[in-house]
Amino acid sequence: MRSVSIVGIGQSPVGELWEQSAREIAFVSISAAMEEAGIETADALYVGNMLSGSLLGQEHLATLVADYCGLYGIEAAKVEAACASGAAALRMGVMAVASGYHDVVIVAGLEKMTDTIGKDTTAGLATAADAEYESLHGVSFVALNALIMQRYQYEFEVPLDAFAGFSINAHRNGANNPNAMFQRPIKMDTYLRAPIIASPINIMDSSPVCDGAAAVVLAPTERAIEWTAGNHPGSVEILASVSATDTLAVHDRRDPLVLEAARLSSQKACNQAGVSIHDLDLFELHDAFTIMSALSLEAAGFAERGEGWRLAEEERIGIGGDVPISTMGGLKSRGHPVGATGVYQIVEVVQQLTGRAGANQVKDARLGMAQNIGGSGATVVTHILGN
Amino acid sequence: MRSVSIVGIGQSPVGELWEQSAREIAFVSISAAMEEAGIETADALYVGNMLSGSLLGQEHLATLVADYCGLYGIEAAKVEAACASGAAALRMGVMAVASGYHDVVIVAGLEKMTDTIGKDTTAGLATAADAEYESLHGVSFVALNALIMQRYQYEFEVPLDAFAGFSINAHRNGANNPNAMFQRPIKMDTYLRAPIIASPINIMDSSPVCDGAAAVVLAPTERAIEWTAGNHPGSVEILASVSATDTLAVHDRRDPLVLEAARLSSQKACNQAGVSIHDLDLFELHDAFTIMSALSLEAAGFAERGEGWRLAEEERIGIGGDVPISTMGGLKSRGHPVGATGVYQIVEVVQQLTGRAGANQVKDARLGMAQNIGGSGATVVTHILGN
Repeated sequence: MRSVSIVGIGQSPVGELWEQSAREIAFVSISAAMEEAGIETADALYVGNMLSGSLLGQEHLATLVADYCGLYGIEAAKVEAACASGAAALRMGVMAVASGYHDVVIVAGLEKMTDTIGKDTTAGLATAADAEYESLHGVSFVALNALIMQRYQYEFEVPLDAFAGFSINAHRNGANNPNAMFQRPIKMDTYLRAPIIASPINIMDSSPVCDGAAAVVLAPTERAIEWTAGNHPGSVEILASVSATDTLAVHDRRDPLVLEAARLSSQKACNQAGVSIHDLDLFELHDAFTIMSALSLEAAGFAERGEGWRLAEEERIGIGGDVPISTMGGLKSRGHPVGATGVYQIVEVVQQLTGRAGANQVKDARLGMAQNIGGSGATVVTHILGN
Repeated sequence: MRSVSIVGIGQSPVGELWEQSAREIAFVSISAAMEEAGIETADALYVGNMLSGSLLGQEHLATLVADYCGLYGIEAAKVEAACASGAAALRMGVMAVASGYHDVVIVAGLEKMTDTIGKDTTAGLATAADAEYESLHGVSFVALNALIMQRYQYEFEVPLDAFAGFSINAHRNGANNPNAMFQRPIKMDTYLRAPIIASPINIMDSSPVCDGAAAVVLAPTERAIEWTAGNHPGSVEILASVSATDTLAVHDRRDPLVLEAARLSSQKACNQAGVSIHDLDLFELHDAFTIMSALSLEAAGFAERGEGWRLAEEERIGIGGDVPISTMGGLKSRGHPVGATGVYQIVEVVQQLTGRAGANQVKDARLGMAQNIGGSGATVVTHILGN
């Protein structure tokens, strides 16, 4: 199997991009990644996207984006795994290059959640859950996460402000990311006064609805040297690429407070990369809700069951902490254009590993993990990157 | 790169399956394929599907199906490329095994077009076209094909009944396929009296709206011998796996009467397999509309531009003809559950190459091509199988 490297990255700003259609947002990220990689076309384009069919009335999205970006004739396909669509698309790109089927592959994550064709974004997000056994009964996606959070607080006797640190950390880091949707730090007081969305989740526990696209260019590691000459900021190797699943419905899990797929996915990724979880210099986790940060830290092995929330302090998860998370703002502050998020996470790890994270640079970062979660932990895609 | 073989196939009957939900239809095909392959789980499941988000309110489909089929913990992702979703999912499975990331992969195609949540199937199908430059102006998917057919008839001075033979052939073959939606032969008179849907396309030119799922199990060819022992009907090698694209919108094409992506896709597939197009014993083409049969035959090199319709005679495209097409009924008679079709085509080529096509058996079939088309020729995925 050929080793695969990332030789170019690109991203659009995240936000409510009312002036741009999906294809235009994709173009911003793809053209930037192609420019950095110094390529004029590619062998294939895989697009991670969740909601274009239900919110925009547009399927066949990857071919549309290839066409709009001038990538005439190349292979194109969309990959969907709810909010893990971005990283699931990267898995396909990795396998395409690793197999030898392709040499140069573009992977983009793309989501347009504003300016929909009269469709309900909340209903769209609920399609990540089981339509017949969860959504049909009226539960929204945030409500499912609220049930999990409530159970967590009850079972582990967690104080009300236990999760605030995750949100404060994300916003502190997002303030230095020019592509973040929210570029303002928040204080504990902001968190405590935040309006409730679905009890106990408040607006500061929750990532926003937004638009955005991110892209990477992949090539065989043995040929990455072609791109690292001259002014190139340096390529980054994909040391592990793993996807694991759990039951789709939360009520089918043995323990709703254990992200079993995240445990499996993290463990396999560490084995594949030949590293220990404690070797990682940073961990871009999937903080769609603060409860997911706590559960992800537990599942990956950074904390015992019911103890993840105790890491929500600057000295633990901040840029200089033991396990820096959400280093460019995470889903909470950079924003969570759902199908794009997995690729944003990868782009940000590359920024860290190539010394381009600015004020948020993790010192001497050599090894980073990105974890993208679909649904309430049903699909978990983990990548470990190194240089 | 490891060679990949198909070691198990399965399919559900095609039709209006009102009594079964999407997951149940998928289970019928996947459990049959797993039984034939003699496996109890797999490393990954890729599901080709186009419309689950917009018609069923269910994204995250592959993880749902893995869960329902008892494939706990394995990788799962949905792949979408409009009506070419099934074969696009197969591409991913092929790369997963070829790369060495996985050994045993299940690829399923699944579509449920009846029993939708109050959604319009015609609008759903139009999401294969350009939402902002085609569908927004009111053109449906069948209307786009009708425009192409009308232009073809005008430009090449084609008689009114020129396409009848494609429909008659499909129904003749479908009559012997127990899984086909329509199992009744038709006569020229049936075709000539058929009601018009979008002029000049009549109901006998057009494939039906329906439900269905098909599945294959993939493994490295070097290990396929494990499955060919005993009563196994024999494995089939994937000699070529190629996807190519064209502009999404028909009005952007240099020549709307040339399926440029099909030309490219067929040519590359022949190169990859090291065969000539005339070596093929059968060609499962994408006869969503009869005009697509003519254009596909031209693009693949079986006829000159504007001459494809002349092949629509039994002695050319029938089971005993030069280039047998739609040998199990094709999209027209077996049915076209859109995201599933690409996998049905593969399953049927495997039936032919392992001598299991019953009354429709192509004599001494050793080499077969399946071609799955998304949109009006914008994505074309071609596989060549051999044994």
